[in-house]
Amino acid sequence: MSDSPSPSAPASPQSPTPRLLEGIRGPADVQALPADQLAQLAAEIREEIIQVTARNGGHVGPNLGVVELTLALHRTFDSATDRFVFDVAHQGYVHKLLTGRGGEFFRKLRQTGGTSGFLLRSESPHDAFGAGHAGTALSAALGMATARDLRGTSEHVVAVCGDAAFTCGVTLEALNNVVSSTRRLIVVLNDNEWSIAKNVGAIAKYLNRLSTNPTYNRIHNDLEKFFTSLPGGNDMHRVYLKWKRETKDFFVESSLFEKFGLRYLGPIDGHNLEELTKNLAFARECDGPVLLHVLTQKGRGLEAAMAHPEKFHGLGAFDPNTGESVKPAAGTPQNYQDIFGKALARFAKDDASIVGITGAMPSGTGLTYLATECPRQFFDVGIAEEHAVLFAAGLATQGIRPVVAIYSTFLQRAYDQIIHDVALQNLPVVFCMDRAGLSPNDGPTHHGLFDLSYLRCVPNATIMQPKDEDELVDLLHTGLELKAPAFIRYPRGAGRGVPIKSQPVFIPPGQAEVLREGSNLMVWALGPMVADALALADRLAREEGLSVGVVNARFVKPLDRTLLLSHGACIPLIVTMEDHVLSGGFGSAVLEALQDADCGVAVERIGWPDQFVDHGSSVSVLRAAYGLSAEAIYQRVLSRWRNVSTAAVDSST
Amino acid sequence: MSDSPSPSAPASPQSPTPRLLEGIRGPADVQALPADQLAQLAAEIREEIIQVTARNGGHVGPNLGVVELTLALHRTFDSATDRFVFDVAHQGYVHKLLTGRGGEFFRKLRQTGGTSGFLLRSESPHDAFGAGHAGTALSAALGMATARDLRGTSEHVVAVCGDAAFTCGVTLEALNNVVSSTRRLIVVLNDNEWSIAKNVGAIAKYLNRLSTNPTYNRIHNDLEKFFTSLPGGNDMHRVYLKWKRETKDFFVESSLFEKFGLRYLGPIDGHNLEELTKNLAFARECDGPVLLHVLTQKGRGLEAAMAHPEKFHGLGAFDPNTGESVKPAAGTPQNYQDIFGKALARFAKDDASIVGITGAMPSGTGLTYLATECPRQFFDVGIAEEHAVLFAAGLATQGIRPVVAIYSTFLQRAYDQIIHDVALQNLPVVFCMDRAGLSPNDGPTHHGLFDLSYLRCVPNATIMQPKDEDELVDLLHTGLELKAPAFIRYPRGAGRGVPIKSQPVFIPPGQAEVLREGSNLMVWALGPMVADALALADRLAREEGLSVGVVNARFVKPLDRTLLLSHGACIPLIVTMEDHVLSGGFGSAVLEALQDADCGVAVERIGWPDQFVDHGSSVSVLRAAYGLSAEAIYQRVLSRWRNVSTAAVDSST
Repeated sequence: MSDSPSPSAPASPQSPTPRLLEGIRGPADVQALPADQLAQLAAEIREEIIQVTARNGGHVGPNLGVVELTLALHRTFDSATDRFVFDVAHQGYVHKLLTGRGGEFFRKLRQTGGTSGFLLRSESPHDAFGAGHAGTALSAALGMATARDLRGTSEHVVAVCGDAAFTCGVTLEALNNVVSSTRRLIVVLNDNEWSIAKNVGAIAKYLNRLSTNPTYNRIHNDLEKFFTSLPGGNDMHRVYLKWKRETKDFFVESSLFEKFGLRYLGPIDGHNLEELTKNLAFARECDGPVLLHVLTQKGRGLEAAMAHPEKFHGLGAFDPNTGESVKPAAGTPQNYQDIFGKALARFAKDDASIVGITGAMPSGTGLTYLATECPRQFFDVGIAEEHAVLFAAGLATQGIRPVVAIYSTFLQRAYDQIIHDVALQNLPVVFCMDRAGLSPNDGPTHHGLFDLSYLRCVPNATIMQPKDEDELVDLLHTGLELKAPAFIRYPRGAGRGVPIKSQPVFIPPGQAEVLREGSNLMVWALGPMVADALALADRLAREEGLSVGVVNARFVKPLDRTLLLSHGACIPLIVTMEDHVLSGGFGSAVLEALQDADCGVAVERIGWPDQFVDHGSSVSVLRAAYGLSAEAIYQRVLSRWRNVSTAAVDSST
Repeated sequence: MSDSPSPSAPASPQSPTPRLLEGIRGPADVQALPADQLAQLAAEIREEIIQVTARNGGHVGPNLGVVELTLALHRTFDSATDRFVFDVAHQGYVHKLLTGRGGEFFRKLRQTGGTSGFLLRSESPHDAFGAGHAGTALSAALGMATARDLRGTSEHVVAVCGDAAFTCGVTLEALNNVVSSTRRLIVVLNDNEWSIAKNVGAIAKYLNRLSTNPTYNRIHNDLEKFFTSLPGGNDMHRVYLKWKRETKDFFVESSLFEKFGLRYLGPIDGHNLEELTKNLAFARECDGPVLLHVLTQKGRGLEAAMAHPEKFHGLGAFDPNTGESVKPAAGTPQNYQDIFGKALARFAKDDASIVGITGAMPSGTGLTYLATECPRQFFDVGIAEEHAVLFAAGLATQGIRPVVAIYSTFLQRAYDQIIHDVALQNLPVVFCMDRAGLSPNDGPTHHGLFDLSYLRCVPNATIMQPKDEDELVDLLHTGLELKAPAFIRYPRGAGRGVPIKSQPVFIPPGQAEVLREGSNLMVWALGPMVADALALADRLAREEGLSVGVVNARFVKPLDRTLLLSHGACIPLIVTMEDHVLSGGFGSAVLEALQDADCGVAVERIGWPDQFVDHGSSVSVLRAAYGLSAEAIYQRVLSRWRNVSTAAVDSST
């Protein structure tokens, strides 16, 4: 794309000469750097990103792609007063390194005590807006530009959006509002042709045409030249101009973005610093909204990342030389996503009416298996969760059995479609929500801790969570047998290592599973908490001599009321355990069911507190930090048991 | 727009000659009708719609605008096999009248036992998809077309979308997916330049240019003609064709929709049946997705409706001759929306940092007062709730105090933005949710019964509901004083008639109000249920001699735990009352708070059951149908009291 040579391979970290990067303590240092040292700085930034992400994992590809672009932004604007809004903000590593967040803080990227993998207003005054979900930058930037116009200040607002953002409804809503909201906004369209997977849809195709045919977008000039070159020359040109006036601004509006009132500049080589700064400086002076179409290479500077853009979008630790992922420890069970993906592909091969839908995440959700084995039954709609769910609703009206695979946190985008289109019409759509619970390195934008609360109020919904990967397959099978909306949540990462039965079993909705009987306490646990409940029961028996039962709840809705009430009638304390916030979650459903039956049994609810959970090194680190370590849970349950049993003794004396 | 004369004024309903409409029992009758009788049928349909909506209220304007379009659809396609998907579906009255839902059923439009104001799959096999929220047709239709392609059948799928649908993100997401999903889809863009209010945004402006300059969109032909007419004639034309090939499909892609891969046909006179059927028949034979741009007049056939399109979008009963709305009974208090709108305008005049944002509903939300008095502080972003909330988040980062006024049910569209953009960044955005509770004539798509459940799990949120309109102003003031997200819900329609204080009062978050002390039962009520609670308390005192206290809860989050626990400690039964579903709602919050404090007091929760609530003639009719009449509540509470007091006696003996 650029004529300049590719940056050299990462230098040895033991390099004796001091790096330029160490001298960059803030944007002023970037601005002060002689232009001829920028290439060196860019190479050092790439080296740093590769070294750190190779160890900690992270969004390698997107960040390697925006090194020059971010440098050019900081050379042209002042992020202390101007506002940069990075879409998704997973490409903010370079910006972090340039705004005082390098060194140890950066080397602990995505770890407890280190920098977040995304931008955060609480982390730096240079982060104008935090993110983690795609498509939010244009709207937020429009808000900032409008605020500026209202108070009459003069700072610049720059939205940096990937091409994938233009598959998101909210970006397109914002695009429709740009011109009516402000006269000054700079949009950088960072076009690398990839979201997480290869981009899909008409806009992606359109951008590709713009990029691959330079003539195409330099049409204005060409047209004028063409007319001037005709026999008759200037006369012809006059005829043309008259006709052009009569047909209004047809030619001016050739580009899609110009139809939305943005001046289009591009395509611009996103790895040519001079071209970037020249165009950004021009945009800075424009008196109307402007869009810079910048072409970048995802993963530039790391061969493996350029060869495998989807894998290197975001990944765990890897070998920076070979690009090989660090293998999980021997004996690590398969991930839930793979179990789900394989099961779906198996079911779909036997039943052509089953289809799978993803919002730009074929590999993250495990739908790649379906895409490979039944390509006609696989749909990637782009980062368009609302459309994904509505499209599924339309399919379901016609006898197709859609399975919508969207992470718990991203399904929030389609909440209205879930209620208004799927549930109200009681359409049989199966929702598979991976990443329910924590996504520890990613943090609050990626944890899936709210879905039970926002789904439990929806009529007609069946809500389930398996205790292990084999039960996940059973519940997927169950969901596909239902004639109504079904929601299955399961955690990120490895399963429990149980084998998958050759034939799945239908589990009647609302049927919980008693794993262990007990007479003092009964623990109703959900999903991965079932294993914690068994360990808790063991310890309470061992150390306190208590008889503790354990139930695998499986269904949050409908709840197994019969079993629950039978426990409520004879057991003094029920404990609920869920990998979800407590407000309105599974434990809350248990409280409701008991009170509605006039059962006053004591219930101790274990789950996440009413606050956003930070990023951290691991699930266990975060559980400890938020009062959910095994020890903390043990103490809490024991203390409640003592209260309950003392009260029982008191009232009986 | 059309050269044909406007339809005549509605004929007298006592007209002795039998109407054609009575002979239309289904689409086959429409198809069999001689073409020269269609104008008469159209006039009769308009007459029927005007008469019925004048009595029952409803979406007058949108339906009067699509009479010819709907006739043309039924003349060209067969809705028994082909699929019509009407966006929002409030313009489906004509379709209902043509598909066997006329007569008494239609005359009870929006009443208990009558036809819904929207389309419903459960109401007719001719309703391929139900709706009520805008922007869903294109996605759903794409699902249906894809299902057809998968199973290899040949029916047509026609999405009928208003121009306002193209301000919705989900429509634009679908638009981006059309070409990759199917090769056969017919999109009718019903362009009347209005959503509920006048349409906003770049696409609306673009459509207006297309409509007002016929040359503009006939550019392809013109260009060819122009070249042929040049000196040199055919030679010139060849040069042109060569150049056109070289610049690829630039000219073919002149229209916005063609950039998305849809063939554009139009503009078409939406009141000219012949032109409509000719174009629809052409579209039916196209082998690629096609968009028909149809120009219609909202309210056509009713002078008052054409003069006041926003008012006549949807309204209550009116005089069909004068267009005057039927006045509310003397002494009816002002609506909540007007109280809110006036208060906001008052606050905004005193504080330039306060702005109001609506999604195409300035009058429904009451923001017209702000628009009139502080136009610079008013923003209508179109039917774009996601952008509305994100735009507010962007504004809030810059010291602006945005108030987002979106009905409870429509706020579901912006759920992810509420969590990910506003709450996670703890930005001070005030959400004013009108239509919390029932919207009885509209039905399940418009009731606001889920917001407490879906908001209660969101960290940093303050959630409030006033007992009356004066407290609404206090809570709005309170919300604007907070430095965090605030949500205020209030019902549709008239307030309680209490006067508004000259100066609002700040109510500390989490401070409930004891309206009446009691020792047997304590009723914790929310919003309009406070009045019901007082009446319930009176009757329990009168008929049963019970001492019943009443609390105006005001805050669902944070809850007044101190007060609640003091009641839990000494009162045997707490009753919660909310205009919201029980799953995860206010009563559930009360259960959680009590159990977390190890308080086992009995709680009887009153609220809506776990099912979608139908449309009906009034709130009281629906409350009776779903077990929430005053009598039913009285019996339920009394019965629970008897259980509780009996148990207390049992355990003390």
